[in-house]
Amino acid sequence: MVTYSGQIQFETQGEPDIIDITTKVKEEVKASKIRSGIVTVFCTGSTGAITTIEYEPGLLKDLPNAMERFAPHDAVYEHHLRWQDGNGHSHVRASIIGPSLTIPIIDRQMPLGTWQQIVFLELDVRPRNRHIIIQAIGD
Amino acid sequence: MVTYSGQIQFETQGEPDIIDITTKVKEEVKASKIRSGIVTVFCTGSTGAITTIEYEPGLLKDLPNAMERFAPHDAVYEHHLRWQDGNGHSHVRASIIGPSLTIPIIDRQMPLGTWQQIVFLELDVRPRNRHIIIQAIGD
Amino acid sequence: MVTYSGQIQFETQGEPDIIDITTKVKEEVKASKIRSGIVTVFCTGSTGAITTIEYEPGLLKDLPNAMERFAPHDAVYEHHLRWQDGNGHSHVRASIIGPSLTIPIIDRQMPLGTWQQIVFLELDVRPRNRHIIIQAIGD
Repeated sequence: MVTYSGQIQFETQGEPDIIDITTKVKEEVKASKIRSGIVTVFCTGSTGAITTIEYEPGLLKDLPNAMERFAPHDAVYEHHLRWQDGNGHSHVRASIIGPSLTIPIIDRQMPLGTWQQIVFLELDVRPRNRHIIIQAIGD
Repeated sequence: MVTYSGQIQFETQGEPDIIDITTKVKEEVKASKIRSGIVTVFCTGSTGAITTIEYEPGLLKDLPNAMERFAPHDAVYEHHLRWQDGNGHSHVRASIIGPSLTIPIIDRQMPLGTWQQIVFLELDVRPRNRHIIIQAIGD
Repeated sequence: MVTYSGQIQFETQGEPDIIDITTKVKEEVKASKIRSGIVTVFCTGSTGAITTIEYEPGLLKDLPNAMERFAPHDAVYEHHLRWQDGNGHSHVRASIIGPSLTIPIIDRQMPLGTWQQIVFLELDVRPRNRHIIIQAIGD
């Protein structure tokens, strides 16, 4: 049983960037040499989130549209009233979707669906330099 | 320290099916013979989700009603405009709730509440054959 | 490779209590003596949730306001019609946000952002005695 730590780093353009990190996570799982275990994909920071989605252009618009329904840009945010940074909706979306995703590793592979990609959601209003932690445990 | 991989398979009737998989997950945890560790329940595919809920008939209606508020059936989905498969709302709901749940194993048991069941949410519009991965690690 | 089980216990005042448990989770990670691994923070019960947020007074209002948009207090809940406990919205919010969070442990630390705290969301309508499970695995 071993643990493996990797990291993915990239620049975003701010919302509504949705970055497909599946290939990078697969590379880390391969580098870990783990045959059977789990991998946790974790986003450091409070204005980004990790989930899975069918990575195609339509849904890259539909998902932000849905988030707009519970955390609209034009609502009044107490966070903004205090800090004037215009990203109250970003924080709220990040907390609801969550910063972490754990995926099994079986026969050195993640059992993702054909149309299921691992994505980082940039929810902040400005370009950011992001570090995603890839932590694997197994045999 | 060992890893254990199991799978739960079932047919759904399409949305709004919510399947209680608690007993099946408990059987897999028992089969793993792990006394102390964690178990990850993972849904392969981009139109289903895993969470916990009090499994009683009222909430099985209330949860879909809430999802309707952020991903309504009658909204315009770019996914649908491209692919004509009528399940844009399904994908969006799946991404927001998420495909993975990790639960501790303590004394060979999951510390679930009495009214807390592990569920698979079928969010797709048609019957599906689903495979849920149960991956446990521990001593 | 070892596993470690800890628990955090506290009283809440009912919604919209949001409890910063970061320091407590850090203490458990330290107590585990794990240098490299993962830690799962799990909420027993179906009316609470675990996530991360920038813990500042503005967002502690903004997050409940956002949840109100998909699970408003004044909607009709089948759960309430059956059980008369007035917490249908609590259950729905808990299922959507989720009861579990898994975080890497690297060099004995969790790679949280400066403005990213681990929080328990009390979503129930009355004061509750809560037990949060901290389960760590690693070397």
